[in-house]
Amino acid sequence: MFIILVYDVNEKRVNKVLKTCRKYLNWVQNSVLEGEISDANFKKLKSEISRIINKDEDSVIIYILRTTKYSDREIIGLEKGGESLFV
Amino acid sequence: MFIILVYDVNEKRVNKVLKTCRKYLNWVQNSVLEGEISDANFKKLKSEISRIINKDEDSVIIYILRTTKYSDREIIGLEKGGESLFV
Repeated sequence: MFIILVYDVNEKRVNKVLKTCRKYLNWVQNSVLEGEISDANFKKLKSEISRIINKDEDSVIIYILRTTKYSDREIIGLEKGGESLFV
Repeated sequence: MFIILVYDVNEKRVNKVLKTCRKYLNWVQNSVLEGEISDANFKKLKSEISRIINKDEDSVIIYILRTTKYSDREIIGLEKGGESLFV
């Protein structure tokens, strides 16, 4: 599956969240990562994030695309991250 | 179509970008909006954004889902935006 992860977390925890996510996903923009991920790694990623964030204060949204066949990605302006595996 | 829009723009332009996006989409998290949008409105949104941002400095990524049938959305922690139309 392909996932898009966006996070809005307290500054104290941002580096840890980013470091964790980068183990599994590609950084594409401030607070946004994306990439193909296996079910097993997806479970690991979610449990690692759950241990880092403060659930009353921080927010992590994960969009899960079981296929990218019906989706596209457009950029206006700068492409900050590396080449996306999306297309 | 359903779109997820994430932006990373210079502070001077953030309010204008947010105000423009909110005309068409739902705010769900810092720098992230989502929602159903028609082709016509999608064109209008992109041209309005193009007029606001500095393309050498700012980055707007739009994920386009022609159907949400093959996708899901999970939240870890706080749900900051309103109820999503996603599911």
